[in-house]
Amino acid sequence: MKVYNTKDWAQFVFLISKSDTLFKLAPLIFFMLLYSLGVAYVEIHYFKVSDESWVKNLPQMHGLLSFVISMLLVFRTNTAYDRWWEGRKLWGQLVNNSRNLAIKMAGILDPTDEENRRFFRRSIPIYAFSLKDHLQSKKTEYSLQDDHLIEENYLAASVVSDKHVPNQIAKLLFGKINALYKTGQITGDQLIVLNGEITALTDICGGCERIKNTPIPYSYSSFIKKFIMLYTLSLPIGYAYMLGYFAAPIVAFVFYVLASLELIAEEIEEPFGMDENDLPMEKMSENIQRQVEEILI
Amino acid sequence: MKVYNTKDWAQFVFLISKSDTLFKLAPLIFFMLLYSLGVAYVEIHYFKVSDESWVKNLPQMHGLLSFVISMLLVFRTNTAYDRWWEGRKLWGQLVNNSRNLAIKMAGILDPTDEENRRFFRRSIPIYAFSLKDHLQSKKTEYSLQDDHLIEENYLAASVVSDKHVPNQIAKLLFGKINALYKTGQITGDQLIVLNGEITALTDICGGCERIKNTPIPYSYSSFIKKFIMLYTLSLPIGYAYMLGYFAAPIVAFVFYVLASLELIAEEIEEPFGMDENDLPMEKMSENIQRQVEEILI
Amino acid sequence: MKVYNTKDWAQFVFLISKSDTLFKLAPLIFFMLLYSLGVAYVEIHYFKVSDESWVKNLPQMHGLLSFVISMLLVFRTNTAYDRWWEGRKLWGQLVNNSRNLAIKMAGILDPTDEENRRFFRRSIPIYAFSLKDHLQSKKTEYSLQDDHLIEENYLAASVVSDKHVPNQIAKLLFGKINALYKTGQITGDQLIVLNGEITALTDICGGCERIKNTPIPYSYSSFIKKFIMLYTLSLPIGYAYMLGYFAAPIVAFVFYVLASLELIAEEIEEPFGMDENDLPMEKMSENIQRQVEEILI
Amino acid sequence: MKVYNTKDWAQFVFLISKSDTLFKLAPLIFFMLLYSLGVAYVEIHYFKVSDESWVKNLPQMHGLLSFVISMLLVFRTNTAYDRWWEGRKLWGQLVNNSRNLAIKMAGILDPTDEENRRFFRRSIPIYAFSLKDHLQSKKTEYSLQDDHLIEENYLAASVVSDKHVPNQIAKLLFGKINALYKTGQITGDQLIVLNGEITALTDICGGCERIKNTPIPYSYSSFIKKFIMLYTLSLPIGYAYMLGYFAAPIVAFVFYVLASLELIAEEIEEPFGMDENDLPMEKMSENIQRQVEEILI
Amino acid sequence: MKVYNTKDWAQFVFLISKSDTLFKLAPLIFFMLLYSLGVAYVEIHYFKVSDESWVKNLPQMHGLLSFVISMLLVFRTNTAYDRWWEGRKLWGQLVNNSRNLAIKMAGILDPTDEENRRFFRRSIPIYAFSLKDHLQSKKTEYSLQDDHLIEENYLAASVVSDKHVPNQIAKLLFGKINALYKTGQITGDQLIVLNGEITALTDICGGCERIKNTPIPYSYSSFIKKFIMLYTLSLPIGYAYMLGYFAAPIVAFVFYVLASLELIAEEIEEPFGMDENDLPMEKMSENIQRQVEEILI
Repeated sequence: MKVYNTKDWAQFVFLISKSDTLFKLAPLIFFMLLYSLGVAYVEIHYFKVSDESWVKNLPQMHGLLSFVISMLLVFRTNTAYDRWWEGRKLWGQLVNNSRNLAIKMAGILDPTDEENRRFFRRSIPIYAFSLKDHLQSKKTEYSLQDDHLIEENYLAASVVSDKHVPNQIAKLLFGKINALYKTGQITGDQLIVLNGEITALTDICGGCERIKNTPIPYSYSSFIKKFIMLYTLSLPIGYAYMLGYFAAPIVAFVFYVLASLELIAEEIEEPFGMDENDLPMEKMSENIQRQVEEILI
Repeated sequence: MKVYNTKDWAQFVFLISKSDTLFKLAPLIFFMLLYSLGVAYVEIHYFKVSDESWVKNLPQMHGLLSFVISMLLVFRTNTAYDRWWEGRKLWGQLVNNSRNLAIKMAGILDPTDEENRRFFRRSIPIYAFSLKDHLQSKKTEYSLQDDHLIEENYLAASVVSDKHVPNQIAKLLFGKINALYKTGQITGDQLIVLNGEITALTDICGGCERIKNTPIPYSYSSFIKKFIMLYTLSLPIGYAYMLGYFAAPIVAFVFYVLASLELIAEEIEEPFGMDENDLPMEKMSENIQRQVEEILI
Repeated sequence: MKVYNTKDWAQFVFLISKSDTLFKLAPLIFFMLLYSLGVAYVEIHYFKVSDESWVKNLPQMHGLLSFVISMLLVFRTNTAYDRWWEGRKLWGQLVNNSRNLAIKMAGILDPTDEENRRFFRRSIPIYAFSLKDHLQSKKTEYSLQDDHLIEENYLAASVVSDKHVPNQIAKLLFGKINALYKTGQITGDQLIVLNGEITALTDICGGCERIKNTPIPYSYSSFIKKFIMLYTLSLPIGYAYMLGYFAAPIVAFVFYVLASLELIAEEIEEPFGMDENDLPMEKMSENIQRQVEEILI
Repeated sequence: MKVYNTKDWAQFVFLISKSDTLFKLAPLIFFMLLYSLGVAYVEIHYFKVSDESWVKNLPQMHGLLSFVISMLLVFRTNTAYDRWWEGRKLWGQLVNNSRNLAIKMAGILDPTDEENRRFFRRSIPIYAFSLKDHLQSKKTEYSLQDDHLIEENYLAASVVSDKHVPNQIAKLLFGKINALYKTGQITGDQLIVLNGEITALTDICGGCERIKNTPIPYSYSSFIKKFIMLYTLSLPIGYAYMLGYFAAPIVAFVFYVLASLELIAEEIEEPFGMDENDLPMEKMSENIQRQVEEILI
Repeated sequence: MKVYNTKDWAQFVFLISKSDTLFKLAPLIFFMLLYSLGVAYVEIHYFKVSDESWVKNLPQMHGLLSFVISMLLVFRTNTAYDRWWEGRKLWGQLVNNSRNLAIKMAGILDPTDEENRRFFRRSIPIYAFSLKDHLQSKKTEYSLQDDHLIEENYLAASVVSDKHVPNQIAKLLFGKINALYKTGQITGDQLIVLNGEITALTDICGGCERIKNTPIPYSYSSFIKKFIMLYTLSLPIGYAYMLGYFAAPIVAFVFYVLASLELIAEEIEEPFGMDENDLPMEKMSENIQRQVEEILI
């Protein structure tokens, strides 16, 4: 995710970064410019349309449909942003849960029980890292041991990376807590108190998977793109009568605005990739690690 | 549900698939085209309306009402999408719940208790499959046994497909957990910890039934369709004066845009069918099965 | 609630049912038609306004305010629909809760304890029926006994219909569960597991009462109606110059659209009556009864 | 809160009650009328502007900004209504919680334990009354005893009205429940079952305080009012050329519409006062009292 | 946060305070005025464009895009306000939680246990103060002791300000409650009853961090600013033909309106700073302190 100062206007207005829609749409905008010039040329030199021509009233239709198109784009923008913000919320919950689980285990576990403290100090942040890799479809092996030399096999046996990794770590975590309960190191009341945090992990994972795997319905995605193209391609036909060659930059600008909104929405709606607008999951996982280690000394 | 690459514009713009609204609306659009040509012909050749004619100001009204119609369509689009997304969320919760229940039972059940492990490994995914069939009104018999030869009657007795199948599986699941609690294999604290997952199953089922059985109020559905038809049918009367025969493609295009939005909304608002935009419940159920089997070895 | 096929357009467009706004607004639309004709007649024959008249620019104002009026109507539509959908959700929760309570009691109660099973089999659906009657202000006596001959007085004593009936049934339900807990037939852990379902009943009842008793603020209701009337009544004054007698059907159509939206919103916002768009509470209560009886054999 | 029949149109359209925005805005509307007449007089008689004057195109700008202003007003309307509806929901929850607490205590307390029954029968409704007075900044003393003669001092000692009264009553309630738990009259499981209701009281109180103490940000409130004034004050300058003295009623009407929306939003956004649109907290508290007394006999 | 009377219109309309967008945008508005005058001068004196010029139809485009720009600004306004309101809700929850925790501890702790009462009386408000400082990136040391002379080292050891301070205080709180549970001063049932309040603290902290650290996606922020600048910079080109030098104040006014909305959104979306619209966290923390001290005497 790009870090930026929201209040520095110059940066936004004059800088055209690589992630800018102006940069990405440049070829299409250039095509629109040429196309409009062509339409204007044909209309002015071949048809020589007079003021009485019926075609000159075409912009009437574009006015009529301008509400529909802008409302559709706002619908698109809203849903894309909602998905992005929901993804952000889910990762925020992951941070909160990890910390709460660490705070609770720090209080519940015996201060001298270094082994179990190390287990949770390692495994809680690993859930975040594994979820990140799972959402970005990377396969990694995670070690729950500080000392890699000992018990290496223990992990290999329990977290196999060709299965659903976050599930397995959640299982390991609940299994450990249940085992501590069975051996009396955690009382029944404490088990109930820990329940919310354990359950939340898988809920968060499922929420992220839902956002990642379900784009907005194909029908909308297809219809909006078709509508934008038909709308802007028919725009110069009427505008060339009113504006002459000036129609070209205007059509290009209208196209830039409409297509930008669709383009940004496409980038935003799946926040787990590695685009500039995507969530900084790596950094958030490191934050979880640092804070859990601070708490579970 | 159609899987697609959101960033491939060409596919959306030039391809007219069978599920496209352009394809479905073709006859009506063609009718609109003919109707507008007819209106234009009559106005131009019979009435020979001059520029002074009052009728030429009719588009004024269409401009006035264009806000109302686009806002209504956005209202329609929003509610349809919300229902679709809520349906998706409910199935996401089903995935999460199934996994959490499996993770918890994997920890709680004795590692050697193969019988009970097999029961949950089978019955949790069966809930998803039965919910899918219930929403699609299919009647199926589900076997909770790996070995079909033994105890076939046990199932036949407990899950009868002419009753509400998901309810019966939920009852079987809670009954089993309660029985394990009574025999001491699950402690009281563990019962409380499992409560959320068991309760959620029926809540999810009810949520899906609500979306399936309650379309938006008849009044809105009826009014929007009436409004679109009256709006587009009166459009060529005024436009023929301004645009001549050009009015025909324009009216057809306006009709295509307005009717498409209504058509897509109709498809989206009931996400449990077998249309292209509907939820991939079969695949999700298989996912649940695979993951539960991974967890509850 | 009217059951209908969302995909049958002909039905919506050509059929004018009794619940249609066109039917209900007919007298007012007819009045608007006459009024506009009168205004046009006066302007054309008495004032003989020329093209230079200032009044002909009046539609300018209607254009300016058309955004405000359509946005207000969408606000009205959204809030009315939200209330209707919330009412539907509350009844959906009632279905879910009733089933969950039945599923849990079926597991918890001893299979031979026919008396208590009968109590819950009867009293859970009765809550739904009594809530329906309470929302529709009917007063009914409910019997919790299969055998009406025995213990008739028991009910008469405990559920008196001049008090708040749903409250009393909720009290009876919790009282019974608490009594079972005190006599050891329900353990403490099971009591906690049942808590959510019992509490939800009164929450659902309160949610429905809130929707029923609180219409949108008087100020909005009054302002929107005033605005629509002033807007449409001033419409023909300017339109008669532009459109002559054609102004009449146009004004009538604009009025039909604006008033319909207000009218539908009024019908929808209170979903517990017996209008065509209202919730099928009778059917839902019967569903609860059938399913609870299926579960709690 | 004004009780009204939503379906009686005549009442809304022709009646101008004291709470009507038309009544409240009358002086400002009258000023706008005079101001516009003045502007029109100056333009027509002094400047004698011809059709070529540039100023006559000013309405172009008002058209351009009409979307912005109507969208801002809808944003204002939506947030105000959301706050009002949230306030209503919080009081609805208070009703539900009070009833649920009463239902649970009725079941839990020994039928012969008249003293504790009386305590809850009195103190639950008093929480509602005290919250109402707290939100309306009244200071009152509440008695938790039926018999005022005895133990008057007990209350005086525990509920001092110069402290935060609802907090003290919540403390008294939890203290009593905790005491009953310590003496064994409430078991631990019942304590857990009662937890939700006790916690909710303070959450509801805090929610109401939040709505009461936090108006929408000063920047928006200030900007919207500035925008409306600048917009309507500049309106007659351009309109006088187009509409002559007719501009005056039109400007006044536009001002009436825009200012009404802002005015209603102001009234609605703080629902705990004693305006006509505010919540009937007195009546709701009495309802709570009556129902709690019905339940906790 | 600025405290103000929402109903005093004069204050809003005529007063231009330092926080006003008019004040902040003054230099840019002045630049726009000069720029538009320049464009008008060039067009009128050099190009001497006639009425036939194509350029005069440019405003057509601005009309077309005015919907898009106003909808984008409303999207911006809505998301900014939602963030501000969510921040306010989180702090409202903090107030509620602190009070509920105090009310519960007041009931649970032995009335004579002055030491533990003092601990909670001090540490609960300190969480609020530390969260405020954490969000404003101040580093402070907090003392949990009334008597600073004794046990000063105890705090220094446990709350180190270069770590995440709220986490440490939450850990201290849970640690103390868990210790009381282990020594039997809090029963298991009471521990469960306290769980919600303890968990909520870290959830609130995480929610605030999320709002603070995640501005709306860079793409939107950049696109909206670019769009506003291109839109207003091209506005005088077409307007100078229609309005002459009058175009200058009009363009300046349009720019003022559009840029104000963006500017206010920027201020509102991060509610934890020290601007005039930001939340009064200092005051709220003091409120928490006063109320907790009132409750936990």
